[in-house]
Amino acid sequence: MTAAPTPHNHQEDTRDPDELRLECGVFGVFGAADASVLVTLGLHALQHRGQEACGIASFDGHFHNERRHGLVGDNFTNADLAKHLPGTAAIGHTRYSTAGGAGVRNLQPMFADLSCGGFAVAHNGNLTNYMTLRKQLVEDGAIFQSTSDSEVILQLVARSREARVVDRFVDALKQIIGGYALVAMTNKKLIGARDPLGIRPLVMGELEGATIFASESCALDIIGAKFIRDLEPGEVVVVDTEGVRSLKPFPDARLRPCIFEYVYFARPDSIVNGKSVYEARKQMGHQLAREFPADVDVIVPVPDSGVPAALGYAQEAQIPYELGIIRNHYVGRTFIQPTQNVRQLGVRLKHSANRSVLAGKRVVLVDDSVVRGTTSVKIVRMVREAGAKEVHLRIACPPITHPDFYGIDMPDREKLLAATQSLEEMTKTLEVDSLGFLSVEGLYHALGSGPRNAEAPQYTDHYFTGDYPTALPDQELLGIDKTHISYLVDA
Amino acid sequence: MTAAPTPHNHQEDTRDPDELRLECGVFGVFGAADASVLVTLGLHALQHRGQEACGIASFDGHFHNERRHGLVGDNFTNADLAKHLPGTAAIGHTRYSTAGGAGVRNLQPMFADLSCGGFAVAHNGNLTNYMTLRKQLVEDGAIFQSTSDSEVILQLVARSREARVVDRFVDALKQIIGGYALVAMTNKKLIGARDPLGIRPLVMGELEGATIFASESCALDIIGAKFIRDLEPGEVVVVDTEGVRSLKPFPDARLRPCIFEYVYFARPDSIVNGKSVYEARKQMGHQLAREFPADVDVIVPVPDSGVPAALGYAQEAQIPYELGIIRNHYVGRTFIQPTQNVRQLGVRLKHSANRSVLAGKRVVLVDDSVVRGTTSVKIVRMVREAGAKEVHLRIACPPITHPDFYGIDMPDREKLLAATQSLEEMTKTLEVDSLGFLSVEGLYHALGSGPRNAEAPQYTDHYFTGDYPTALPDQELLGIDKTHISYLVDA
Amino acid sequence: MTAAPTPHNHQEDTRDPDELRLECGVFGVFGAADASVLVTLGLHALQHRGQEACGIASFDGHFHNERRHGLVGDNFTNADLAKHLPGTAAIGHTRYSTAGGAGVRNLQPMFADLSCGGFAVAHNGNLTNYMTLRKQLVEDGAIFQSTSDSEVILQLVARSREARVVDRFVDALKQIIGGYALVAMTNKKLIGARDPLGIRPLVMGELEGATIFASESCALDIIGAKFIRDLEPGEVVVVDTEGVRSLKPFPDARLRPCIFEYVYFARPDSIVNGKSVYEARKQMGHQLAREFPADVDVIVPVPDSGVPAALGYAQEAQIPYELGIIRNHYVGRTFIQPTQNVRQLGVRLKHSANRSVLAGKRVVLVDDSVVRGTTSVKIVRMVREAGAKEVHLRIACPPITHPDFYGIDMPDREKLLAATQSLEEMTKTLEVDSLGFLSVEGLYHALGSGPRNAEAPQYTDHYFTGDYPTALPDQELLGIDKTHISYLVDA
Amino acid sequence: MTAAPTPHNHQEDTRDPDELRLECGVFGVFGAADASVLVTLGLHALQHRGQEACGIASFDGHFHNERRHGLVGDNFTNADLAKHLPGTAAIGHTRYSTAGGAGVRNLQPMFADLSCGGFAVAHNGNLTNYMTLRKQLVEDGAIFQSTSDSEVILQLVARSREARVVDRFVDALKQIIGGYALVAMTNKKLIGARDPLGIRPLVMGELEGATIFASESCALDIIGAKFIRDLEPGEVVVVDTEGVRSLKPFPDARLRPCIFEYVYFARPDSIVNGKSVYEARKQMGHQLAREFPADVDVIVPVPDSGVPAALGYAQEAQIPYELGIIRNHYVGRTFIQPTQNVRQLGVRLKHSANRSVLAGKRVVLVDDSVVRGTTSVKIVRMVREAGAKEVHLRIACPPITHPDFYGIDMPDREKLLAATQSLEEMTKTLEVDSLGFLSVEGLYHALGSGPRNAEAPQYTDHYFTGDYPTALPDQELLGIDKTHISYLVDA
Repeated sequence: MTAAPTPHNHQEDTRDPDELRLECGVFGVFGAADASVLVTLGLHALQHRGQEACGIASFDGHFHNERRHGLVGDNFTNADLAKHLPGTAAIGHTRYSTAGGAGVRNLQPMFADLSCGGFAVAHNGNLTNYMTLRKQLVEDGAIFQSTSDSEVILQLVARSREARVVDRFVDALKQIIGGYALVAMTNKKLIGARDPLGIRPLVMGELEGATIFASESCALDIIGAKFIRDLEPGEVVVVDTEGVRSLKPFPDARLRPCIFEYVYFARPDSIVNGKSVYEARKQMGHQLAREFPADVDVIVPVPDSGVPAALGYAQEAQIPYELGIIRNHYVGRTFIQPTQNVRQLGVRLKHSANRSVLAGKRVVLVDDSVVRGTTSVKIVRMVREAGAKEVHLRIACPPITHPDFYGIDMPDREKLLAATQSLEEMTKTLEVDSLGFLSVEGLYHALGSGPRNAEAPQYTDHYFTGDYPTALPDQELLGIDKTHISYLVDA
Repeated sequence: MTAAPTPHNHQEDTRDPDELRLECGVFGVFGAADASVLVTLGLHALQHRGQEACGIASFDGHFHNERRHGLVGDNFTNADLAKHLPGTAAIGHTRYSTAGGAGVRNLQPMFADLSCGGFAVAHNGNLTNYMTLRKQLVEDGAIFQSTSDSEVILQLVARSREARVVDRFVDALKQIIGGYALVAMTNKKLIGARDPLGIRPLVMGELEGATIFASESCALDIIGAKFIRDLEPGEVVVVDTEGVRSLKPFPDARLRPCIFEYVYFARPDSIVNGKSVYEARKQMGHQLAREFPADVDVIVPVPDSGVPAALGYAQEAQIPYELGIIRNHYVGRTFIQPTQNVRQLGVRLKHSANRSVLAGKRVVLVDDSVVRGTTSVKIVRMVREAGAKEVHLRIACPPITHPDFYGIDMPDREKLLAATQSLEEMTKTLEVDSLGFLSVEGLYHALGSGPRNAEAPQYTDHYFTGDYPTALPDQELLGIDKTHISYLVDA
Repeated sequence: MTAAPTPHNHQEDTRDPDELRLECGVFGVFGAADASVLVTLGLHALQHRGQEACGIASFDGHFHNERRHGLVGDNFTNADLAKHLPGTAAIGHTRYSTAGGAGVRNLQPMFADLSCGGFAVAHNGNLTNYMTLRKQLVEDGAIFQSTSDSEVILQLVARSREARVVDRFVDALKQIIGGYALVAMTNKKLIGARDPLGIRPLVMGELEGATIFASESCALDIIGAKFIRDLEPGEVVVVDTEGVRSLKPFPDARLRPCIFEYVYFARPDSIVNGKSVYEARKQMGHQLAREFPADVDVIVPVPDSGVPAALGYAQEAQIPYELGIIRNHYVGRTFIQPTQNVRQLGVRLKHSANRSVLAGKRVVLVDDSVVRGTTSVKIVRMVREAGAKEVHLRIACPPITHPDFYGIDMPDREKLLAATQSLEEMTKTLEVDSLGFLSVEGLYHALGSGPRNAEAPQYTDHYFTGDYPTALPDQELLGIDKTHISYLVDA
Repeated sequence: MTAAPTPHNHQEDTRDPDELRLECGVFGVFGAADASVLVTLGLHALQHRGQEACGIASFDGHFHNERRHGLVGDNFTNADLAKHLPGTAAIGHTRYSTAGGAGVRNLQPMFADLSCGGFAVAHNGNLTNYMTLRKQLVEDGAIFQSTSDSEVILQLVARSREARVVDRFVDALKQIIGGYALVAMTNKKLIGARDPLGIRPLVMGELEGATIFASESCALDIIGAKFIRDLEPGEVVVVDTEGVRSLKPFPDARLRPCIFEYVYFARPDSIVNGKSVYEARKQMGHQLAREFPADVDVIVPVPDSGVPAALGYAQEAQIPYELGIIRNHYVGRTFIQPTQNVRQLGVRLKHSANRSVLAGKRVVLVDDSVVRGTTSVKIVRMVREAGAKEVHLRIACPPITHPDFYGIDMPDREKLLAATQSLEEMTKTLEVDSLGFLSVEGLYHALGSGPRNAEAPQYTDHYFTGDYPTALPDQELLGIDKTHISYLVDA
């Protein structure tokens, strides 16, 4: 989901501007004692999909909800968790971004008291017709409590003229456009749903008779649940005491998942749409080594995201893999450099050079992607200052030239390095001796899916190609009328 | 306003169960630099109308909002207040009750992004058809973010088919029943409104060209604003840069204000509906002395609310007025007696006996009212333990026999002492040598308004008479269906 | 006790600069189950002696300690209190002042691990040779953990060459000069001690076999303890399982208590040195009316401290006593006026005028004392703005012309109004029609102790007379060397 | 430093009981603008040496101090840092352990106001005669404010009869026994000191004329400071505006550093005593492969500490190195498993298995060390559940059989796995197919220092050999009298 831009934040965003941030993670349980405890663990395994906030809703005859800023492990640690969030059904959410004034009311799960009973929902992804729908709903008298696109789903369910809640939910899904994985909970059911192209991932698992939904399989592993299957594109799975039922309200659904889940977002130990993420990344490294070999002494990953690709590159190239850059995992998200002359030290808070590996060496650095390039150039300089003789940069995905509208927090197009510079220019900008990006076809090949079918691509790869998989109504609306929302800025 | 009962509080309510709690205070400013600063001060002067939470919304082109649990003086103290809540228009609210899970989303002012622009509202009072309206609205697809009756007004405004926001607001007022004083703010206007019987008070003032609305005149005094007038019953006053305009959408409006504002709620230095509250209370004491004289040595008030009546009693009776009971103002609202044997000390946390005044004396205690009687009996015992020879209790209002539905937080009827016991029984229960309650006619007389017009009473006095001034639709609904709301319990 | 001045506070002191602040309150219990619960209640009753911080130490075989900023009722409210602070012996402390960087290490009770066992102490008062002793101790290798004079006592006990802890404590007392009431606790005993002139008060009580020490008798009343007696000047009372033992280590001790306890500090329901504080204050009012009568319509107290004297004045003068000024008890201690033009409203946050009493009237205002006069002039103006025709100010104590060094937080002499202005000048400064201060002899008379014995005054009254009861070594030291302490400023 | 055991913690320690925790990190700066900002960055780089608490003291004519629980990056992030902690000299400390009641008074830097001026000190290491010295000092009248051994140094400095502070410090050093790296600050000087055997590391650097002391060279790198040299064993380096001066008060000092710094504690990018830690660990892996080869498909590190040794092992064995275990870096230190049946999931909060690497494979797991073995066995089971056919465990250091007394937080001897079980027993306990520990001689060889000189070992390796490098007076004292300290338990 995406928070509409809140223009009056009193707090500065101090996160790394060069880091892609994913969307969110969702998790749901039906039919387990202390369901909220399992959700806590599942969300912990999905923490990489959103570190800014988290929330859990449970049902034990009443709906209960806790939504908090910060990590799961810093918020849902109370021994009384199962008392605060009782029940055998629960859903949860991790969220990447609430910098500033957004406030708790933008956190998930969101809840509505419907005439047919309560309804809670957690959403990973982004709607491309959120503002369009919101405008219509507000004109029709709806009051939005948040600036999140997820609430549109709630409002559509509330307004549906269908009698039963599952029908209302399907009614709402038919009106929204975009990429989404949803877990919803009523006073009787748990529901999982995936968008008609399966852009965002969602898997189903089982633990001692309980049904589980999760954004990634690694969240099943942490609780020892059995992986059952990926949800199919456009599938709605309804779980209640009667059993598990699959609905397919979109006749034209077909799989076209986000390729960036493999490049960067998913955890390496997850299996996404049947493919090992770790293995995929290693293959990207192998392919990269084939496409852009280099005569060097050592292959060094930019940790942590570049590690599997670097291993693949090193194995393919038969050149030693060494930890030339050490990552400091203690970096607080709020670490502020207090004075101007210290600000330049920025990148070193997270990374430091391991001189014993780099001094006097010709080095290939392997990273997963380049967004603005600001972090990359700092790392390159650090590696040179540590004594590297040559620095060659290898990127395990194609140049990012177009923004995403399906749940990845990317900068505007003009700030994407590859959207404005040629390879030669980038080589200079990044101050490297050579630069290589994995090709689009190479990426498909690494995934074992190539060649790319230009008519009906196997993945959505619009960040590299501009080939967006759905309509983008809000982009047109924004061109006309950017300010139709009256914000309430919670201080 | 009233929060619907939230049945799953994780936190115990530790407030004095024998204390009446008022509803709320409201305050609004239009046309002053740093309007939110004036609102802060106004709310501070209205703190006696609600100590549990407070909130301020301001407008400077955008809407800003801060809502907090606790006192105004503990929350709105930041030197940057005018930066956080900028603008020349602002409204504010103090609230009495948010024990437990109610959460910030039940606090006021509340806000809605309407198709015609933003709308914020703060509400003092209670609607008697809140649940009836909420049921209809939810069936029609509305999503409530709170369990507060105030949100019904917001939803009605959002749903109105009128084009202009003032017309929408009037449209909403015509659908609600109850006692209310409202201040609302749009991106162009400040609006004040009082229910058709003027049950809840609302005054208008002026400060250097700015227009002010406030629950009581004492809130004008604190900022040095000039008192203009009370709003008339059923009046809607709209303020914008064009000036001040009065609407009278209720043709049959007539004044029948809450008599308890004079007995207990309003601050003694306020002028309510043209009458000094201090003077009214002193006259209740004079009248009480005439109705129930006593041959004693000393007149002692139960502080602080019994002080003016005790002064009046003592002056009428020509008997010395002495501070025989000392009140400790440092009592935290959360002071919990940690062990059973200490729990009996309860009342002494707030009151202590001044032995030098009481020992060997015949004493009249004067209090403003008796609700359950639990506090009174503890005070009577404390006075006897301090050596009083005789204890006579005089209450400066009639026996409370019926609950209120217009914003006073009263216990159920069966817990009201005077609803279940005769005067003789109460005399025994309260362990006093004699007991006297001011008569209803005596109360009207003390207010200079007697005798009571039984056909069209000058005040609403239903707590004493059962004569409710409006229809009570929710009472009928509750008889049928108590549980139609799906609560989301925010932990 | 007094914190040495910490010059680098990062936080501004926002308290009323015109208010005298007392020193502290102490309380101790030996031989009661859940002793810390009783201490909590006793400290609550002593809250008027210090609202800035509080602390409790208990002993159950181990020493336990909790020290907190803020009110007792906001800090010691946990139902688990008796678990956190277990044991049958406990001591506690309320403290007036920790503005800025002083930090928890300056709070009391203070503790030392002595070679003969642990020793905890709480102190009300001030030593006049604190810095002199500290300088010697530091030269001798002592490390001070606080900037509080109370720690000197701890260090002297630790250094004493006596074998037994009571002898060490007496050894320490013989080295200190000043006014003090001390309660101390070892692993076997509770000790109470009062300075050789009995400047600071300390009483002993009894509750079901347990022995209690308290700064004032009102703290015995709150727990229903029986008042036994005031400690004698210079007396050290030692309580253990063997019983209660009285030591008199100062042969020349004689009672000369602080007269300001009667004027301002003690609670009206306390009995201090055998005299009712309420009765004393009323008599000051009677005497004031005799010394400075006025032909007026109404007697108005400056609440709350002027109330008993105003009652006495009104009774003596046979003029109606009315609440012309209303005090707002909700004022947060941190209420900051956020903009310059609001700053002038200052005093009205705490006091407001009751117009119905004041308009068109000739008024006598009665207050307990005048320090700088800044609050008084604001109140006088407020009363005039409310329509008073004449305002006569009557002060129920003599002019304050000299600073205190025994535990009262007074401004420097040059800031004391009466130290720099004549009565005529003060009348102008305070903008009153007439001004009268109770005479020193009148004050002694009101206390039933007159006339004042100039050779050996019955009270210490140095604030009015400059006649200090003890030597003042630190005042000489400060003249020479103000900065011999290296402060550690805890941010 | 070591906190004496505080027996009455109200908070449970939820850290991994199987993890070795180091002692602390220290950092000091003299002669740089905004010295505290540099200290913040240096401490951030030393965060791996202590995550529980941190503190900084600075001097700008006054001493300033901030000590906080938690990470540097969560506490010292304020843009006003240089205002709160001003000055051109500053020292800082990271600390591993403050579980429970220890309180801020146990945090460092510690400070004393000496007669010759203020003195602040930060300490990494542990004294083996702490309790012995403390007992003597308390008998002599010293009051300890903490239960930390570091305060003994402060007390000895305070008591020294030397006139000058450097002489006092040396006087203190001559009385203490143990392993330590100290940075101290007076109102004129910065001092660095290392114990006579150089057990704990300390390096000196230079940045634009400013002198830096740091526990490890990685803390110089983060601020771009130049490495000058390791301090020599027993060396005291004094820095002031006159320059840098070296004292050698211990004539018999000789280097015998802690070998565990190379095995586990130091960061891989640090150079300790002239050796690259990363290179040392890789060599341990090479040696381990030579000593304990295995016929397997894949080499998998236990992240993060086993990574360099696993790389070395894989390179030596010519077997693929793969990330078969993924570490979750978001684990909050306070993550509590809320119910019994979830508690068994424990280890998976931090580690998860990467099935695509492990399934059907014969695996060598490489870890740096084994303490209790509880974590190892959970990891082995997890790897097996992920489908590994064989699991062979290789440990890159010898069996730990003896506790440390120089700053490593180890369990009692009976809880050390290798102290109670044979290799064969451990193989069963850990449920592995084979088990191999690097030999002591192999470890010396990997460090390029072998063979071990049994008469005068080049390192202290007592955890493996029982050959302690210093006297252990407290161990004798503890045998006699465990409870001579009266604890004050701060709640």
